[in-house]
Amino acid sequence: MKVEIVAIGTELLLGQIVDTNSSWIGGELAAAGLDSHFQTKVGDNPNRMRESLELALSRSDAVICCGGLGPTQDDLTRQVLADVMGVELEYRDDLAEKIEAMFTSRGRTMPRNNMSQAMVPVGASPIPQQPGTAPGLICPLTYNGEERVIYAVPGVPYEMKEMVLGTIVPDLRKRSGETGVIASRVMRTWGHSESGLAEVLADRIDELDQIGNPTLAFLASGVEGLKVRITAKAADDTAVQEILDAEQRILQPLIGRWTFGYDDDNMETVVVRALKAQGRTLAVAESLTGGYLSGRICQVAGVSEIYRGGIVAYDPRVKHDVLGVPEGPVVTEEAAAAMAEGVCRLLGTDVGLATTGVAGPDEAEGKPVGTVCMAVSLMMGEGDDAERYTRTATVRLPGDRERIRQFSTITILDMLRKMLGG
Amino acid sequence: MKVEIVAIGTELLLGQIVDTNSSWIGGELAAAGLDSHFQTKVGDNPNRMRESLELALSRSDAVICCGGLGPTQDDLTRQVLADVMGVELEYRDDLAEKIEAMFTSRGRTMPRNNMSQAMVPVGASPIPQQPGTAPGLICPLTYNGEERVIYAVPGVPYEMKEMVLGTIVPDLRKRSGETGVIASRVMRTWGHSESGLAEVLADRIDELDQIGNPTLAFLASGVEGLKVRITAKAADDTAVQEILDAEQRILQPLIGRWTFGYDDDNMETVVVRALKAQGRTLAVAESLTGGYLSGRICQVAGVSEIYRGGIVAYDPRVKHDVLGVPEGPVVTEEAAAAMAEGVCRLLGTDVGLATTGVAGPDEAEGKPVGTVCMAVSLMMGEGDDAERYTRTATVRLPGDRERIRQFSTITILDMLRKMLGG
Repeated sequence: MKVEIVAIGTELLLGQIVDTNSSWIGGELAAAGLDSHFQTKVGDNPNRMRESLELALSRSDAVICCGGLGPTQDDLTRQVLADVMGVELEYRDDLAEKIEAMFTSRGRTMPRNNMSQAMVPVGASPIPQQPGTAPGLICPLTYNGEERVIYAVPGVPYEMKEMVLGTIVPDLRKRSGETGVIASRVMRTWGHSESGLAEVLADRIDELDQIGNPTLAFLASGVEGLKVRITAKAADDTAVQEILDAEQRILQPLIGRWTFGYDDDNMETVVVRALKAQGRTLAVAESLTGGYLSGRICQVAGVSEIYRGGIVAYDPRVKHDVLGVPEGPVVTEEAAAAMAEGVCRLLGTDVGLATTGVAGPDEAEGKPVGTVCMAVSLMMGEGDDAERYTRTATVRLPGDRERIRQFSTITILDMLRKMLGG
Repeated sequence: MKVEIVAIGTELLLGQIVDTNSSWIGGELAAAGLDSHFQTKVGDNPNRMRESLELALSRSDAVICCGGLGPTQDDLTRQVLADVMGVELEYRDDLAEKIEAMFTSRGRTMPRNNMSQAMVPVGASPIPQQPGTAPGLICPLTYNGEERVIYAVPGVPYEMKEMVLGTIVPDLRKRSGETGVIASRVMRTWGHSESGLAEVLADRIDELDQIGNPTLAFLASGVEGLKVRITAKAADDTAVQEILDAEQRILQPLIGRWTFGYDDDNMETVVVRALKAQGRTLAVAESLTGGYLSGRICQVAGVSEIYRGGIVAYDPRVKHDVLGVPEGPVVTEEAAAAMAEGVCRLLGTDVGLATTGVAGPDEAEGKPVGTVCMAVSLMMGEGDDAERYTRTATVRLPGDRERIRQFSTITILDMLRKMLGG
């Protein structure tokens, strides 16, 4: 089954907004086993919108049309859909009441022009999910004697996503005759190149090409590493999870050493989870990462249970005076170790992380841009045997200031993860 | 003159990469006064690539085709262009030498398959800018008796951008008969809504609609505010700058109070510049922003001249023990003030910023998620009259954890900017 995406909005063509919606929908279609051969962006112009929709109907079985469902004069999608279907718009009392109730519940009066959102092409039905004021639409039609369907969704990402996941993908799968269940699992890897992983997995990928189910896909995620996505089809949820589990067991010996998490995990959620499980507390001391490391850690909801805080020791004097780093050069593993141990002492934690280095634009202490010294300090052993252990490392990272900071942050979090036995 | 963009790559359809190239090109075309009515994404499939290019040729004067110029078997753009032009590919010695020289200069041997990048449709000419191994191409052709041109550029953003700015936009403007110069200036505003700014500027926009030159455009940038872009045309650089200057003088009384910078400025570069100009030093104390504020400040190259560092006082004990915040509640303006003054004392700076609040997911100290208390502390006056002045504020911010952190950061930087007389 071929599904085409048409994104509506002059602001998309002018580059004022990047069309992330089509990409996201494309990913969901692929994960559901549905093909998408073309994706088009077109401005708020009724003739060109109609031209794009009819072209899509001529070469695909279904069309997802995104945007242009707002209440203003620029929002032309409803009228264009009625034209393409060859029908009139009708006023739907039920939708009008729903829209008005949304305003009332927020203590606001509905502006008159929002009533236009209750106009629906005759024969279209609203999508049940409606998180905003714009109803999504399912528009069945016949095009050149063939049965087709257009789904219209708002351009607001969270509204669109709820409708695509809640109604459109299941409806498309039903129409395509798919009765089974499709599910995916992502293995999140870090520290190995795409070509390296591809080589390690080459034999297994060849085998899966023969078998056809499950399938593997690589998704590059920049400094966040590479995702290996397993997608399986089966008759029901239990069967599909069994296939995913079995495939994960096969992949584990191959890529387990680079795998730090699964599905929605990222490096900081994995590290925070491990710290919680071990009842540890964390503090960080940063120089070149400048607060970025602490900021990443604080993105994890519930982190306050284990995270005390951090010191951004950007100026060398702060390293010496606040963290007790000995006088002398500060882009060294010794300085990093002193920072990590110093911040544990200062904030009373058992785990400390430290970064110091040269973010650029100029070299420092005779070391080139991209030189980063890191330290992880933590208590090892129990009771009287407990003693502090500090591991240090130096890396040379490529890229600009921002990339060096991001890469250092992931690198030190991965270092901690491994020391915690992850 | 109508220009259409066709982005090539199955990974774009699958959502593995977001197509930011088309958006960026769309923005550059708009700024150069060129229309773009359609933008299409198509996979690495020769028939569908050809179909998309021919459709574009049938309704636009020029096509920019992005991607598929690499050295692998998936890179089909060169062959498809030759097919559309009705010509053969020819091997260009000059390009082969250029590509080989790139590898040699990096001390590497050129893989054999890179030679495919020296194959060019007969009649096409290479784009002079070539930052990578892939040559860009200018392909003039006749389509249904009309003169058309296809430009092919690589999908690697920095390579694409150099070619679009260096050759394609100037070439398109020449073909369109435009002889003058186009230039833009962006006024970066913060703290007022799009509809609010539009209302303030309504009369001027009406006037400019009559005059036609310069033009104004609004570009929403999320928590970073709204950009007001002035675009002017004139015979030469001097004349175009004069129009921009004149328009800026007209807009200043209208939107100056919300304008914090121009063109590539952002809130942190503006604040760092003001601190440098006044010979001040800065430190920050953060709770709910968790390092994000410090991280933003450290993104500015050369910030070490004025930035000493910061304390992430996530745990209340760190606020009390390290920063000297009095025992008691910590989501208060008093606590924020004590944090800002405490970090100035600890790190020896004259300016201190502090944030404390409720980032969620749960409320704290009986205050709802999104409550943020902020303080800016700085020395005012000269010599014996110098005294520390601390201003505090409380805001209630909407959105999720991440948005609250970002919004708080911009809010406090803007507060400091105003106190520095910005």
